[in-house]
Amino acid sequence: MLNLAEDSNPEWVDRAVAHLDEVLLDHTHCEKKAAGGALRLLFSYPNQVFLQAPLADLAKEELTHFQQLLALLEERGIAFERQKPSPYAGKLHGSIRSKDPQRLTDLLLTCALIEARSCERMKLLSEAPIDPSLQAFYKELLASEARHHQVYVELACQVDTAENVRTRLAELAGVEAKILAEAGPDTRLHS
Amino acid sequence: MLNLAEDSNPEWVDRAVAHLDEVLLDHTHCEKKAAGGALRLLFSYPNQVFLQAPLADLAKEELTHFQQLLALLEERGIAFERQKPSPYAGKLHGSIRSKDPQRLTDLLLTCALIEARSCERMKLLSEAPIDPSLQAFYKELLASEARHHQVYVELACQVDTAENVRTRLAELAGVEAKILAEAGPDTRLHS
Repeated sequence: MLNLAEDSNPEWVDRAVAHLDEVLLDHTHCEKKAAGGALRLLFSYPNQVFLQAPLADLAKEELTHFQQLLALLEERGIAFERQKPSPYAGKLHGSIRSKDPQRLTDLLLTCALIEARSCERMKLLSEAPIDPSLQAFYKELLASEARHHQVYVELACQVDTAENVRTRLAELAGVEAKILAEAGPDTRLHS
Repeated sequence: MLNLAEDSNPEWVDRAVAHLDEVLLDHTHCEKKAAGGALRLLFSYPNQVFLQAPLADLAKEELTHFQQLLALLEERGIAFERQKPSPYAGKLHGSIRSKDPQRLTDLLLTCALIEARSCERMKLLSEAPIDPSLQAFYKELLASEARHHQVYVELACQVDTAENVRTRLAELAGVEAKILAEAGPDTRLHS
């Protein structure tokens, strides 16, 4: 359902549990970046009316998650501050085709894959040996991420045929899995 | 309460009524830009924690207004498309001091003034000879704009003293009124 080419290396969960504060801080930034990314698409494609309302909805949800994470950091005494981000999203962007409409398809599909990986990682966190309230939080959140994945794929299907979207999604999913396999030492939601 | 240096020229309402479709389209873009502006502040000042949750709330509200306007355009058969924007916000940005913390104060206060002018203009539209459902829509919206004005001023008061904020707000309000007095021929929410 999530269209990922590879499951996460199980070793990631152990690292995430050992560096939970770092992962929570990164996750907070990721929610803000997800909202920013959706909004950026609205500004880049003002004449693609079909994008506007669904991506505005998605950005609002990401902002709500961002606020939930900010509250969670505060509860846990973790400062919200700049953090070295994972190079993951930047690398994924490197595979985006430069000409429209292919560019728009790829922008939507890379967002779809980021949401999919977030969802998969949140499922792992919801089952990891961490505070049960945090497990519950991730269980709740992962459903939104799965929905957002679906929204991005459906929007891409308004730009290109369902078959082309399926083929391209599989290609980009291969790239995504390769990026994760080569990730550096920092523990992040997408590392 | 809105801290504007000058009321709108009453002639603006007549022009707005005569070019209502143009104003509605511009207003739709303005709501998206307001959300984008709030989010941009969150990315520019990630270490100013006090900004994060209030501006995320504000951005969500602007996105809801954006969606309401999109629906309104559709009901009225107005295409949502690119439109030559008013130079107003760009000109206002020209007065922002370049060094922090003054820069942040000014960024917040220019946002406060844009919200204030929107509120004043929406009040005029709510009393103008237009469709009563549109009058009601503007009546509802103007309360949010007044609240957003207040949010931005209060956030500025966390960056500088209340007295300095008051003085700077009055200076920038003078600039804002001058920009409107010299506005070009296009009819916009801020023209």
